[in-house]
Amino acid sequence: MKRGVRGTWFDFVDDPWKHVGREMEAARFHPDGLLVIEDGIIADFGPFDEVSPRHPDLEVTQIERRLILPGFIDGHIHVPQTRVLGAFGEQLLPWLETWVFPEEMKYADREYAEEGTQRFFDNLLAAGTTTCQAFTTSSPVSTEVFFEEASRRNMRVIGGLTGIDRMGPEEFLNTPEGFYEDSKALIERFHGQGRNLYAITPRFAYGASPELMEACRRLKQEFPDCWVNTHISENPSEFYGVLRLHTDCRDYLGVYEKYDLVGPRFSGGHGVWLSNDEFRRISAHDASLTFCPCSNLFLGSGLFRLGRVTDPAFRIRLSFGTDMGGGNRFSMLSVLDEAYKVGMCNNTLLDGSVDPSREDLAEAERNKLSPYRGFWSVTLGGAEGLYLDDKVGNFMLGKEADFVVLDWEGGPKAAAWHQSLVVGPEGPATMEQAANLLFGMMMVGDDRCVDETWIMGARAYKRTRA
Amino acid sequence: MKRGVRGTWFDFVDDPWKHVGREMEAARFHPDGLLVIEDGIIADFGPFDEVSPRHPDLEVTQIERRLILPGFIDGHIHVPQTRVLGAFGEQLLPWLETWVFPEEMKYADREYAEEGTQRFFDNLLAAGTTTCQAFTTSSPVSTEVFFEEASRRNMRVIGGLTGIDRMGPEEFLNTPEGFYEDSKALIERFHGQGRNLYAITPRFAYGASPELMEACRRLKQEFPDCWVNTHISENPSEFYGVLRLHTDCRDYLGVYEKYDLVGPRFSGGHGVWLSNDEFRRISAHDASLTFCPCSNLFLGSGLFRLGRVTDPAFRIRLSFGTDMGGGNRFSMLSVLDEAYKVGMCNNTLLDGSVDPSREDLAEAERNKLSPYRGFWSVTLGGAEGLYLDDKVGNFMLGKEADFVVLDWEGGPKAAAWHQSLVVGPEGPATMEQAANLLFGMMMVGDDRCVDETWIMGARAYKRTRA
Repeated sequence: MKRGVRGTWFDFVDDPWKHVGREMEAARFHPDGLLVIEDGIIADFGPFDEVSPRHPDLEVTQIERRLILPGFIDGHIHVPQTRVLGAFGEQLLPWLETWVFPEEMKYADREYAEEGTQRFFDNLLAAGTTTCQAFTTSSPVSTEVFFEEASRRNMRVIGGLTGIDRMGPEEFLNTPEGFYEDSKALIERFHGQGRNLYAITPRFAYGASPELMEACRRLKQEFPDCWVNTHISENPSEFYGVLRLHTDCRDYLGVYEKYDLVGPRFSGGHGVWLSNDEFRRISAHDASLTFCPCSNLFLGSGLFRLGRVTDPAFRIRLSFGTDMGGGNRFSMLSVLDEAYKVGMCNNTLLDGSVDPSREDLAEAERNKLSPYRGFWSVTLGGAEGLYLDDKVGNFMLGKEADFVVLDWEGGPKAAAWHQSLVVGPEGPATMEQAANLLFGMMMVGDDRCVDETWIMGARAYKRTRA
Repeated sequence: MKRGVRGTWFDFVDDPWKHVGREMEAARFHPDGLLVIEDGIIADFGPFDEVSPRHPDLEVTQIERRLILPGFIDGHIHVPQTRVLGAFGEQLLPWLETWVFPEEMKYADREYAEEGTQRFFDNLLAAGTTTCQAFTTSSPVSTEVFFEEASRRNMRVIGGLTGIDRMGPEEFLNTPEGFYEDSKALIERFHGQGRNLYAITPRFAYGASPELMEACRRLKQEFPDCWVNTHISENPSEFYGVLRLHTDCRDYLGVYEKYDLVGPRFSGGHGVWLSNDEFRRISAHDASLTFCPCSNLFLGSGLFRLGRVTDPAFRIRLSFGTDMGGGNRFSMLSVLDEAYKVGMCNNTLLDGSVDPSREDLAEAERNKLSPYRGFWSVTLGGAEGLYLDDKVGNFMLGKEADFVVLDWEGGPKAAAWHQSLVVGPEGPATMEQAANLLFGMMMVGDDRCVDETWIMGARAYKRTRA
């Protein structure tokens, strides 16, 4: 079945960090464009006047006064924390114990897991997120429900049974062998089924015995095309805890390297406290990190070195993530707000004014999250960060037609007058105007900018004024 | 004219930082309370069953399923930046030049100033802010319009002509003598007129010649009951720039001390880079600082040392502020969100895990912004920070009846289910439940939690679902 969507479109064709000072080269903008979708796949795309004649009798939905982008991609999020996001007062380890494990344990019950997971996906769509890489719990029920719900909504997701066999409540822990068997069964059932993709998921090295890590190694060896999703170097106490548990490893990355997990399709969330040497090795492995600023700030983990991982000398694949519920928001626009702020704090620390010996003006500049850099990071960049860029991330022919329809006036009361500095009622005519509107949405607006979210060419969410 | 408002009320009677571990002592909670207002002033307050019999035939407005707090207080905000809040990519000094001065210059035109100022106040009320201390521009028109609009809305405000005579565009600068004359005329016209209060406002020492500072000294000497509002130690480059301009002063505070400005009713915004010595002196002077986390992060200024200024050994008066437009939000709830995050980052840096020589567990603990600490800071604490606690800040008899009606389910889609962990449809029955709801509002909710804003016992804003 073929259909068309006509509107104002903005996407990316390259990484803006590779076009410093000429970012517009990395993007595309069609003030009046047509996207042609066939069975959920992009069949054609470009200026309306060019594309439309190629598709006579096409049923076209016209979307006016909106800016349409590829759907947002969340590289790191915890389904079972949907209800406890933003809980008070602790750094990572006590926070898990006080708030998170008790809630996650409820997901062993299928009915509760279904309620939570439905709300999870509703919240994602309301925030314009169309793809995520998710943690579930240590109970297979939670992972089954995750994939079932994703299938029901026809969404491109990555997820897995989230293994932990120490540093948690007894009744919550896996055994290494049980984790191996359960993961295997889930992989065989869900990996590649529809749009579902499986990630072998040791929660973090801090909560994983050598035997559990060995089970992960076996799984990756048997199922080499699976993803691997975990945490790395989020918080200082956690980091030191890992080194005390895995005494033969010299750093946090070394634990995952020891079990042959680091390479393409590996994502480590956070990486706030990685050393330069670890960064270089991650790059050499072609592995990936996920930057989760809301969470890093909420748990006081620290400032992720955005300018370091975007260093062209050893560029690291990056996705951005909410890390909901250590992150207190579901919206990737909120993530961009705080990513910008983390970047600006780094920028000051690297400009020589605080500590002249740390001056690095190029790294300082790479920390500035322009709207190009920001929105690439949550669309095409996020897709590359999750090794999904053959499937999603922009409007290239053959990709899956997931997109988000943005109202640039959305947000608190102050947003509309602010945006009126950029455009009038007729909307953006140039790429630069569109980029300025996007910056306004990330810094002054919020999830209220998300007007519609479409999955495989069908509308899955429409904002109601309630 | 007497009227009553019945609902669920939460306010503070003391500073929660003085009740570590027993914060509930600092607050009051009435699940079913009655506020009696006479000509805008609080005439009675307490549990409905106690208070109501004292006021037969009272016309009572009942507010159900809401939590009512004293109106929020914003200690540092820039009226003329209403349209340019959150503008891209610069630290403080280039940001002023690129974005701010061009917009502020438009406020020399009365018509534009009126439009901007009306929008400013609309945005404040929509965010639940009932009192602010504001910067206008270097043009008296902007200050007149500010006070006129505040009077029209009957709001308790502090503001002043915002003087600058260097490091800005020529046509924007004051002369010291002109600034003196214009300020004097504005003081005589507006200070104490209705609810208006005047602050002698040298924008910042970086943009003030010794002659302009001398003009401020004269004004404070002639009008000792005026407030003084300015900026201090916001950004490293700015701070070094000040020392190069005022070469006889040994630190930033020293510049304001030299001109006899530091004492009660003095507010310095930011203070991110103040030394321990400056902190001690500010405390000894009984002067005040304003913590503006959204701005400090947006401009990359750094992490304010919240745990330092709340040290009981030399406690400093504190208000919180949006610093809209270096701050990208009008909402004090957004300020609390990011204040919490700044505090948690400080907490990690002081717990010994990063640098053992910096360990200070008491200071680390003081950085944790509980809902008690947070909401005190934007109500009674903010009033104390602005030397207005005889007038506003809580529901003591004789104070002005400014309050905000909060919907604890407000915010993004995720908020309601999160809050349902705390209370059912009947709402909070205990102070602890109310405090947990407040934390949820600051971290998971946002300005959508503000349902109504009342000024002097009359409703000034009602949220519409549009």
